[in-house]
Amino acid sequence: MPNPEPPSYAGLKWTGRGISVINQLSLPETVSWIELTSSDEVIDAIRRMVIRGAPAIGSAGAYAVALATKQAYSEGWSSQRLNAAIEEIKNCRPTAVNLYACVNRAASRTHLGFTAVLNEAHEIIREDILANHTMAVSGADFLEGFLGNKPLRLLTHCNTGHMATAGGGTALGVIRELDSRSMVETVYVNETRPLLQGSRLTSWELMKDGIPHKIQVDGATAGTIVGGHVDAALVGADRVAANGDFANKVGTLGIALACSFVKIPLIVVASTSTVDVNIDEGGKIKIEMRDPDEVTQWPGSRITPVGAIGYNPAFDVTPARLVTALVTEHRVLNISAGVLPRDVFKASI
Amino acid sequence: MPNPEPPSYAGLKWTGRGISVINQLSLPETVSWIELTSSDEVIDAIRRMVIRGAPAIGSAGAYAVALATKQAYSEGWSSQRLNAAIEEIKNCRPTAVNLYACVNRAASRTHLGFTAVLNEAHEIIREDILANHTMAVSGADFLEGFLGNKPLRLLTHCNTGHMATAGGGTALGVIRELDSRSMVETVYVNETRPLLQGSRLTSWELMKDGIPHKIQVDGATAGTIVGGHVDAALVGADRVAANGDFANKVGTLGIALACSFVKIPLIVVASTSTVDVNIDEGGKIKIEMRDPDEVTQWPGSRITPVGAIGYNPAFDVTPARLVTALVTEHRVLNISAGVLPRDVFKASI
Repeated sequence: MPNPEPPSYAGLKWTGRGISVINQLSLPETVSWIELTSSDEVIDAIRRMVIRGAPAIGSAGAYAVALATKQAYSEGWSSQRLNAAIEEIKNCRPTAVNLYACVNRAASRTHLGFTAVLNEAHEIIREDILANHTMAVSGADFLEGFLGNKPLRLLTHCNTGHMATAGGGTALGVIRELDSRSMVETVYVNETRPLLQGSRLTSWELMKDGIPHKIQVDGATAGTIVGGHVDAALVGADRVAANGDFANKVGTLGIALACSFVKIPLIVVASTSTVDVNIDEGGKIKIEMRDPDEVTQWPGSRITPVGAIGYNPAFDVTPARLVTALVTEHRVLNISAGVLPRDVFKASI
Repeated sequence: MPNPEPPSYAGLKWTGRGISVINQLSLPETVSWIELTSSDEVIDAIRRMVIRGAPAIGSAGAYAVALATKQAYSEGWSSQRLNAAIEEIKNCRPTAVNLYACVNRAASRTHLGFTAVLNEAHEIIREDILANHTMAVSGADFLEGFLGNKPLRLLTHCNTGHMATAGGGTALGVIRELDSRSMVETVYVNETRPLLQGSRLTSWELMKDGIPHKIQVDGATAGTIVGGHVDAALVGADRVAANGDFANKVGTLGIALACSFVKIPLIVVASTSTVDVNIDEGGKIKIEMRDPDEVTQWPGSRITPVGAIGYNPAFDVTPARLVTALVTEHRVLNISAGVLPRDVFKASI
């Protein structure tokens, strides 16, 4: 019996001998696909952020396990060697838990052979597409209930859409759903330095969907929110701790502080695969420090004096008490009334 | 009797027939000077931010009045025409009050002739140099009293040094003074998108003075502060309202919210020429909207999809209640215990 058609999504396809991914570093100028046929190539692409976004690197990581398994069988690797390769995939970016969780899921099938691992990777994508859809609807329902059915002025950060997930996206999925209900007046898109996922990727996705938006520098966030130009902010997450604290792209905490200051809702949209119940609180989440050159240089030119040092944390941590609601594919945790006790949060997820 | 030697400073010199200014847009790669010999040329340089920083554009504006006066006498302008030229200088950037105040000061001498106006411009520079020195010492004294004599981890935004003032700077002047007291462990310098005054200018000044610093993206501000890496933040101001609210380079409000969240001091350093007692509160300060292309394009390349719209406010407004202390050349207003009543604030300045 032939395998069912493998699932694919806007930014990633299984080609039969590897995965083909959109090179996110070349967007929006050029839509180019790169085929990755070994786990080492996938690792390199994840590290360089050719492919990025917590759910997307989870999917890619699962395929990398499949590719490593195939190579292990064909080249007769020891189980130690395969395990070492799997560890390397798991740790190639440290902050998002999805990569870790998806690699573990795929790795639990390696003893059943390549096809079993590959089907698990396919299944991860199918689940992510479904979770995206469910979160989009329930997030939009929540905001409609909270603010009423009317055009909203939204703010988002980084990219949480087709380029970050297997489906319509997390935060951007909710925005798409709101747009289908004529509930988007405009979206303030933070450009998201240093790698400009907002101006490069989110704007590109919103342009394609005809959703009105404006791109602003990250420093404009607080003024836009406190100045009364925003009704709600929506962001994704890379890892949610067991008390509801969450890590997300650097700049998210500033959004949360501004929303809290003027009491507008901050909605975090993340599937349960992003929740890490093994981490008690946000302060214990490992924050990836990336190459300082991402800050001190611009592709093709240095933007700082020679010798100047860059400081480049890729994420920040937002305390749960600043979050109005956490939208997962199972439920909407409305925590605006106060942070849930940790056990209640764990049990609610 | 010959005129005394005209004052000059790091970024601006009177040449005898105009002003020579460092082209701040080409720093740090190239230190190039541009001579401006008419008020129109000065206006263009201020608009394009070849010269920038509230006190610096105040000085440049006063020289522009001198140049317009010279031209008016030599070409036989009507007083209406001279007044129109002066209005244009005054309004070429709307947010910083210094430009407005310095142009008015110089313009009050036009009936006395070119030399009187020129000497007033020289006097504005002398006063700014002196104010910078006084603010540096009293700001450093305040922080030393507040936090103790120890190496501090500081954070600053935009550029408030030699390139923004006639002297050692406002916020950066305090940092220089703290460094002379061995009280600087490191300075987190926000890059300050869109025009990167932090990574281009502040880092350049700190490198020259050997003051240790790290450049970070603006989105990292909240994480750095809330994460416990900063002891105090120091910023300048473009206009301080009569209740202590102040406008400053976009991104400042985010710093203030983060400082307030973790209760570390936010110090605003600005000479009294920056205080506008005619404006009741910050919400009434006019915020300059600059060319959206500063956000959507990078010199030499577009960074957003074709057709995407940028939103580019150059400043934001921080409420007085988030300010620990306002340092002027006359006194340090410690308002950490609560906002001063407006009349008390007006009377205290």
